[in-house]
Amino acid sequence: MSFLDLVKKRKSCRKYLPKEVPRDKIERCLEAARLAPSACNSQPWYFIVVDNPEIKAQLGKEAFSGAYNMNSFAKEAPVLVVFIREMSKYAAIAGGFIRGLQYSLVDEGIAIEHFILQAEEEGLSSCWLGWFNEKSVKKILKIPRKRKIDTIISLGYARDVDGQGELQKNRKTIEQIREYR
Amino acid sequence: MSFLDLVKKRKSCRKYLPKEVPRDKIERCLEAARLAPSACNSQPWYFIVVDNPEIKAQLGKEAFSGAYNMNSFAKEAPVLVVFIREMSKYAAIAGGFIRGLQYSLVDEGIAIEHFILQAEEEGLSSCWLGWFNEKSVKKILKIPRKRKIDTIISLGYARDVDGQGELQKNRKTIEQIREYR
Repeated sequence: MSFLDLVKKRKSCRKYLPKEVPRDKIERCLEAARLAPSACNSQPWYFIVVDNPEIKAQLGKEAFSGAYNMNSFAKEAPVLVVFIREMSKYAAIAGGFIRGLQYSLVDEGIAIEHFILQAEEEGLSSCWLGWFNEKSVKKILKIPRKRKIDTIISLGYARDVDGQGELQKNRKTIEQIREYR
Repeated sequence: MSFLDLVKKRKSCRKYLPKEVPRDKIERCLEAARLAPSACNSQPWYFIVVDNPEIKAQLGKEAFSGAYNMNSFAKEAPVLVVFIREMSKYAAIAGGFIRGLQYSLVDEGIAIEHFILQAEEEGLSSCWLGWFNEKSVKKILKIPRKRKIDTIISLGYARDVDGQGELQKNRKTIEQIREYR
């Protein structure tokens, strides 16, 4: 599959089959993320893959209830991957400070998208989740309070994906997003 | 080429050939970026592709001199793509505020990496540049002061890429970046 076809094919998935995901597939997703570029090669990332059914059930229940209920579909996913954003190298933090931005967030986007596109290539479906109870996640997984969890990836085999069968994604036109000089 | 092979092959390029880049290749890079997912589907991005030799030369000279001289190699690239980070949708800004992060930066990482991986697939090489004179770039391209330019992508045919011939990228081991629960 060409890269552009992979990008076109990949859609968010909010309905999963209750089917186990082999770890060798997950390992290749992690490998794609591991190789991602980052500012000053900081590699500010750590992945906790939760595929133990009991821990996963507890995590899903606590992370996506109450105010975070809109993402409760994620409880259904057989795997939840908790992304921890680590500190960048000093040069990237200093440069980002001067330039007024946090490079670790850009790096997070790159690494997780590598993971997610490899998942698509493996026949797996996924969803980026940024809205969950971070405090509860840390408590269940015994993650120190000062570490940053921005994203959870839900992962598994799709029962259905968003806008299945639609040929086009809901995006701005090319004319709206670029010009030549 | 499989996605993992594409990821392995792509390396930063700091030496370019003086060879024109066809616009149809650039258009497919932009198309890959256009289709990128983003928080609340905000699509907070705008690309100014500078391939006019005169404007490109002026941009390269002003953006990468003085304190920004470490990236002066970019003057050699036949194309410089200026990435403007736009505002996220209100829901993404509000959610990000509560969660303590800016989703537009994560979205930037995703969209630019889509561009860069498509470039690799097109036989083009590239480099992410975060260190340049933003003020000068805005002046030359007449971009309003309040818009945010975080990244410039240098693009072209490689005369050489970083660590050419090396089989492995300089990265943490898989054991350093993941665990299973």
